[in-house]
Formats: sequence, C-alpha cells, structure tokens
Amino acid sequence: MQLAINLALDNVRTQQGGPFGAVVVREGEVIAQGVNRVVNNNDPTAHAEIMAIRAACQQLGHFQLTDCELYTSCEPCPMCLGAIYWARPARVFYAATRIDAAAIQFDDAFIYQELACSPHHRSIPCQQLLREEALKVFEAWQACNAKTRY
Amino acid sequence: MQLAINLALDNVRTQQGGPFGAVVVREGEVIAQGVNRVVNNNDPTAHAEIMAIRAACQQLGHFQLTDCELYTSCEPCPMCLGAIYWARPARVFYAATRIDAAAIQFDDAFIYQELACSPHHRSIPCQQLLREEALKVFEAWQACNAKTRY
Repeated sequence: MQLAINLALDNVRTQQGGPFGAVVVREGEVIAQGVNRVVNNNDPTAHAEIMAIRAACQQLGHFQLTDCELYTSCEPCPMCLGAIYWARPARVFYAATRIDAAAIQFDDAFIYQELACSPHHRSIPCQQLLREEALKVFEAWQACNAKTRY
Repeated sequence: MQLAINLALDNVRTQQGGPFGAVVVREGEVIAQGVNRVVNNNDPTAHAEIMAIRAACQQLGHFQLTDCELYTSCEPCPMCLGAIYWARPARVFYAATRIDAAAIQFDDAFIYQELACSPHHRSIPCQQLLREEALKVFEAWQACNAKTRY
C-alpha cells in the first residue's frame, strides 16, 4: 500500500496528476501500477485503479485477475468498482475513504445516487431506441458463440 | 443507433467480440465508436461505451463530452455508467436492456448488489490500510492545485 500511496504523491508532485495511485500484486510481487491520468491523458476512465487493472491484465495476458490483490490509495469510485467486479481480484485494500476524497472535491456520491435511479430518472437524459434491432445482435452472438462469457 | 447496432453485429460476426457497440455523436456527426473488446484485448474495461468514450475524448482533446450524445446498443453496466457520469455526455440512448443482456448471460445485477453494500460486506474482501499516509497525498494535492477538479 505504501507504494500505491507513493505513486499518488509522485503523480501530484511531478505529473500534475490526480492524488490517486494503485498497484496490483500477484504472489507477493507488484505486477502493475497506475495513477490518475484523467486530465493528462484526456481520458475520464484513467483512474488509478483502472490504469493498474488494465496494465495487470496486459502483463498476464488475461482479462481477469482472480489470483491478484489490488491496493489503491483511495476507496474506489463506482466506475472502478465496476471494473474491479469484472476483473475479479481476490482482495482489495484501500487507504483513504470516499469521504476523505469528497472533502477535497473528489466526490463520487452523485454517481451512487444516479445508479440507484431507473434510467429514466437520471440527471443525464436517457432514452431507449431500436430494441428489436439490438436483439438481433444477441441472437447472432448466441448462434456464434453461446459458451463463451465476456 | 443503427450504427452502434451494426458495429456490435460486425464485432460478433468478424471479430469474435462481445455483442455490444457504441458511438459518440457531436453536432450530428459520429466522432468516435467502440465495440466490446474485453477478451480480444485482455482488458476487462474494454466495454463498447468505454471504448467509444475514450476515443471521443482523444478526438476532442478533452476529458469530458458535455456537448455529445452517446448511443449504445445495450443499457450500460455500472462501470460504464460510472464512466458516463465522469464524462458527462448531454444524452444517452440505448437499445437492448440489462434484462435482455442477462438473458444471454451478460448479467450485471451482481455489480449493482455489490455497490449497494458497504465495502466490508462485499463478495471481494476489502480492507482499509494506512489511511493517515494516504491523507498526506490529499494535503499535497491541495497545496499544489486546489482549484482543478478531476
């Protein structure tokens, strides 16, 4: 965890990046690391956890991290939690809390509120179109590859 | 939306990818597109919406999409919704629903359940460590750059 924290500190001090760092550990060894690069990379998904998860998956040549641990300098936001649940690391360790982050204006509470709403009650207007056309894609996928899970 | 659906269909038929596609539109013009590349890219975050959002941000040179619309062939998962709320497109359109996707084994209900739990009641064990050390990073960030939001 101290490495994740040190990465976050270095990101603030030398990269003008966000104050967040993360590392992925497998069998006691750090296999990947990440820092918040949202502004630097023009990428709203470039949170430290997602950067570390993506790098770890590249390192392992797999899309899951089932025998790994994720250490993050701050409790993950809903986007990163979603990525964590798709990647399935064995354990997650965090240092600062969401409340700590909110106190310095990195507040993810609004995303939890949005996720708890139905699509038609969210702050970003959300509308359904062409469902029948989209279902044809699911039928094609079932015909091509019903046994693989993504 | 038909383009997002066509991308999804092509991804299934020619790329052995997941049955999901997305496009970002700005001022009536498609500026970016994405398909599910989770398995192909060894990247659990490579959902169609995230691929399209990242590509659109690269295209615009910004980390938000406030004057854009996102069209996705299926209702976004919590990870993608998180990315959508960080990227802030003006509108979201979707075709198939989460229930439709669950019927072909792409079920994100467990992530909603996990997000509704406190960190210590989730299926991936989650433990806090070294909070005081991490708070020093937030103090450093406030000292360096209190006015920028990520």
